Amino acid sequence: MSFSFHLEATCGAARAGRMITPHGEVRTPVFMPVGTVASVKGVPQDVLDELDVQILLNNTYHLYLRPGVETVRQLGGVQKFMAWNKPILTDSGGFQVFSLSELRKINEDGVQFRSHLDGSLHFFSPETSLAAEIGLGADIIMAFDECTEFPATRERARASMEMTTRWARRSQSYFESHRHEVPWFQEQQQRHSREQRQALFGIVQGGMYPELRRESAERTVELGFDGHAIGGLSVGEPREKTWEMVSETIPLLPADKPRYVMGVGTPEEIVEYVRLGVDMMDCVLPTRAARHGLLFTSEGKVNIKNARYARDEAPLDANCRCKVCARYSRAYLRHLYTSQELLAQTLNTIHNLSHYLDIMRRVRETIVSGEFASVRPVG
Amino acid sequence: MSFSFHLEATCGAARAGRMITPHGEVRTPVFMPVGTVASVKGVPQDVLDELDVQILLNNTYHLYLRPGVETVRQLGGVQKFMAWNKPILTDSGGFQVFSLSELRKINEDGVQFRSHLDGSLHFFSPETSLAAEIGLGADIIMAFDECTEFPATRERARASMEMTTRWARRSQSYFESHRHEVPWFQEQQQRHSREQRQALFGIVQGGMYPELRRESAERTVELGFDGHAIGGLSVGEPREKTWEMVSETIPLLPADKPRYVMGVGTPEEIVEYVRLGVDMMDCVLPTRAARHGLLFTSEGKVNIKNARYARDEAPLDANCRCKVCARYSRAYLRHLYTSQELLAQTLNTIHNLSHYLDIMRRVRETIVSGEFASVRPVG
Repeated sequence: MSFSFHLEATCGAARAGRMITPHGEVRTPVFMPVGTVASVKGVPQDVLDELDVQILLNNTYHLYLRPGVETVRQLGGVQKFMAWNKPILTDSGGFQVFSLSELRKINEDGVQFRSHLDGSLHFFSPETSLAAEIGLGADIIMAFDECTEFPATRERARASMEMTTRWARRSQSYFESHRHEVPWFQEQQQRHSREQRQALFGIVQGGMYPELRRESAERTVELGFDGHAIGGLSVGEPREKTWEMVSETIPLLPADKPRYVMGVGTPEEIVEYVRLGVDMMDCVLPTRAARHGLLFTSEGKVNIKNARYARDEAPLDANCRCKVCARYSRAYLRHLYTSQELLAQTLNTIHNLSHYLDIMRRVRETIVSGEFASVRPVG
Repeated sequence: MSFSFHLEATCGAARAGRMITPHGEVRTPVFMPVGTVASVKGVPQDVLDELDVQILLNNTYHLYLRPGVETVRQLGGVQKFMAWNKPILTDSGGFQVFSLSELRKINEDGVQFRSHLDGSLHFFSPETSLAAEIGLGADIIMAFDECTEFPATRERARASMEMTTRWARRSQSYFESHRHEVPWFQEQQQRHSREQRQALFGIVQGGMYPELRRESAERTVELGFDGHAIGGLSVGEPREKTWEMVSETIPLLPADKPRYVMGVGTPEEIVEYVRLGVDMMDCVLPTRAARHGLLFTSEGKVNIKNARYARDEAPLDANCRCKVCARYSRAYLRHLYTSQELLAQTLNTIHNLSHYLDIMRRVRETIVSGEFASVRPVG
């Protein structure tokens, strides 16, 4: 099996590890930029390479609708399709489908939903979602789960968590019998003597109820996934709740497999999650905030449209080594943003990603050197 | 004087030259990408460096309105402002103001116009336009002219051309007494023993009447500008008319100063204009077409949204050495475009500029080697 996870250093609850995937190695803890439709909005892949992005997230729901799974499959999978030669993770489409709210109907079988593009009817179940994820061919794929809404009663959260557990089993079962259908299966077999395969991660749910989270973790771990994710967070709950749910769940997830918290967080939070033992995170915050002119720096947040920057010759962040801070002034970045220039989106996103990825690189270095406890969150 | 033009090789009417400007050397013939508000839409400056862009065009009208001349002046001029360390040319704002049609009033003094941004009233004259261009501090600036509309009667075209001639004299007179006000005047004096200065180009008008073009050329040349431009083209006339006007005018412009045709052309045309002796061209076509999915290749035009490219693994242009063609498939470029992803704009623009700039580089090389006549236009 090509997918494997090696722990290299631990320091309290934090750990650094290596994930070996069919398309390369990922050094954890890692922050995954979001590339919704197989593109990190406004940033060319060679710049993602320069930024030392190790693994990207793509959204199954979006790629399923456009350009369609069959197109990506025929083109060799998402890595070849987007010319990204490193690992990719796809979500199951569940979270996006649940976000459609008015456009969906859920039952034990799965979810019927209407496309946000043209209103056409579609159906996602553990089986159809996994078929899509196998066809897209990411290195790491996610079980199909129900993202419990917030707030939810204990009864509702339990019922939802139990359905997620049943869907996890169905996801796994479909995966086991179809995983040779991944588009690069043949090619990888020719290149390597051993079988190269996708990894399937299970997802813990349970709303904001610690005992449901613990039960979900135990029942998910029993199924023997390649890694484990904590889902159903960042759905409107207070930040302390998010933190509490992760704290309660992480100790129950095996340390010899990657532990992934979905959809978090701020620059401060990602450091704290690593302290709890989290290996992987993804969040739209750095990329989405960048497109709205909200920039993260070592001195705190900067709203670049603020008039005080109109004649400010300083770089956005004097402590940042990214190509944006090396070349451009705040005055120029403000001008691009207020003039609604395309380049504003690109440069702002490059900087914010650089800020996140630098934090994670520093975290990895200090875990390995044993100094991690002394790292203070910035930004 | 720092601005100078040296001819290096001629081949029939075509010539290769070097322009020495305060911010560097430009090897002509050259195509200038349009960076309207101090940004080539969607393309970071380091990529323009990689593309071997030698000189950019910025629009005075747009920068005058936002961020304002005084802001750019205080920040050291357009080069420092946009962190572009090579030469820049600004137009006089005349063409943009005339494009406002309903929002302007013209008389001998100048043009009153309303901002397209907020409707506020402004006035451009030879003096105020030159003051703006000196404040913005580009390496090459243009006299304030009237761009004659098309069609225009002979009487109207003559009156307009004569006003342009009077405005040329006023532009020059203002420039002579204010050119020390350029933002980098002190800095350049400290760095060099001789005076470093902006260059001022005159503009030939005359509508679509060869005898008016000839008269305008003679009267403009008499004024002793640093270079000469042919304006008032690409305003709706048939392409043969454009060609005829350039053909009639070029022989009357001194060969020891740069000859600039404003606002042209297609990939085929720019080669043919060089054959006539043109040293400089600018055009929004490669950048604007790119943003509409129209791409220029060695095999002709490609409309990337065409369904035939949906599963096409080939690069956009197998003969192109740009980073877009080196990495991405037509299928991916089509997906980005149809998904309205920001990255589509960026990648398409990089390719189209690369196509234009490669043509011009090849033209320069073959002029110098004496093979220019054998170069056939492509695209």
